[in-house]
Amino acid sequence: MEKRALLYEGKAKQLFETNDPNILWVQYKDALTAFNGEKKERAKGKGRLNNEISSILFHQLSTAGIANHFVKRLSETEQLVKKTSIIPIEVVVRNVAAGSLSRRLGLEEGVPLNTTIVEYYYKDDDLGDPLINEDHIQLLDLVSMNQLNEMKEMALKVNGYLTDHFKVCDVKLVDFKLEFGFDEEGKLILSDEISPDTCRLWDVHTNEKLDKDVFREGIGQIDQAYETILKRLKGAIVTD
Amino acid sequence: MEKRALLYEGKAKQLFETNDPNILWVQYKDALTAFNGEKKERAKGKGRLNNEISSILFHQLSTAGIANHFVKRLSETEQLVKKTSIIPIEVVVRNVAAGSLSRRLGLEEGVPLNTTIVEYYYKDDDLGDPLINEDHIQLLDLVSMNQLNEMKEMALKVNGYLTDHFKVCDVKLVDFKLEFGFDEEGKLILSDEISPDTCRLWDVHTNEKLDKDVFREGIGQIDQAYETILKRLKGAIVTD
Repeated sequence: MEKRALLYEGKAKQLFETNDPNILWVQYKDALTAFNGEKKERAKGKGRLNNEISSILFHQLSTAGIANHFVKRLSETEQLVKKTSIIPIEVVVRNVAAGSLSRRLGLEEGVPLNTTIVEYYYKDDDLGDPLINEDHIQLLDLVSMNQLNEMKEMALKVNGYLTDHFKVCDVKLVDFKLEFGFDEEGKLILSDEISPDTCRLWDVHTNEKLDKDVFREGIGQIDQAYETILKRLKGAIVTD
Repeated sequence: MEKRALLYEGKAKQLFETNDPNILWVQYKDALTAFNGEKKERAKGKGRLNNEISSILFHQLSTAGIANHFVKRLSETEQLVKKTSIIPIEVVVRNVAAGSLSRRLGLEEGVPLNTTIVEYYYKDDDLGDPLINEDHIQLLDLVSMNQLNEMKEMALKVNGYLTDHFKVCDVKLVDFKLEFGFDEEGKLILSDEISPDTCRLWDVHTNEKLDKDVFREGIGQIDQAYETILKRLKGAIVTD
């Protein structure tokens, strides 16, 4: 596989074309951003950690029958993925009150939710990625209602799988964000990444935060937190 | 009917008990507030105008078969309504882009929407009445999904009826907010008020604003705008 022109540079990743028109080359960066890019930092090792963590999780989701864009990990900070036409919706699944849900509904952080919450956010930096509902999605013609239902169903399946898997690692899956796209055959697949940048992950015993909130809230070493997640995931693979 | 103790005082109305435990006495006030109470003013005549406008519209909705709390108008600024247990959800229906929808989705004000938008807001001043979705409503246990669907269906019926009725008055129904409650038999009925405080109403030819945005945006005389709506509604009744 040959790496070609830079196609897109995001906050945490670069995407390059390859000699296969359906495959992209992803370079994970050490950059950390929060609050819609207002807080920025470089965290040595973060690119490597997220690339490894996301590779492990996507590989396991494939094994669990959840179609996704992951092809293979190439190096510490690089992986190959299927090219998808990205749907500009962030699907957030929540098991425990935290972050914007706590602020929106006045719920104390850490309270378990008696019903799993699925939220849709419109991916638009200029608008600050606003919460949207199904009518907004129809109005903006982002996906059909059938496709949205399929996305929701997949997101809940991912939640079931990841919740169980992290539990084995003594990690509580508080909430996470997913992105989806259509592959070259028009099939809906999971894309983007699944990492401590996109999940809230707490130690199941101490509720210690092991995710990007460590950076958002300035409460510790981000590389140590992410390293803990990677080590526990690797440990779980061995003992699975 | 006998007016008894003050039960509740809101931004625009006072509610009194009566000698009938199922009937409340509403006193419309001249107070105007916007931006969650941050902008305040007194507008002479506003209480009378909203009381009259809301009485006309609720009476007509009753005639159209839409169950609601309106009993009768008592005076210029007073009316009787059925007591309801209020559901803490504001149901917003939108036909044209304006206000928070324009800001949320980056849509130019005045653009007609090719699909009617229904939104739910959690009635909570401290939280700033946030947008919520169906999962949030289940989590907070505000109403059942069946009840929510019934509310949505009623809101769309109200939209159909009011859109047609305002069109006869040369007024464009841009969007509006409804509140619902359960009466003493547990039946879902429309409550609160329908007035230029709760609807965006534009002249159909000039797009002149004839609603609370005149106050929010400081672009004219609120009493004149509301008086225009009342006069046109009264004209329409005669010619209906």
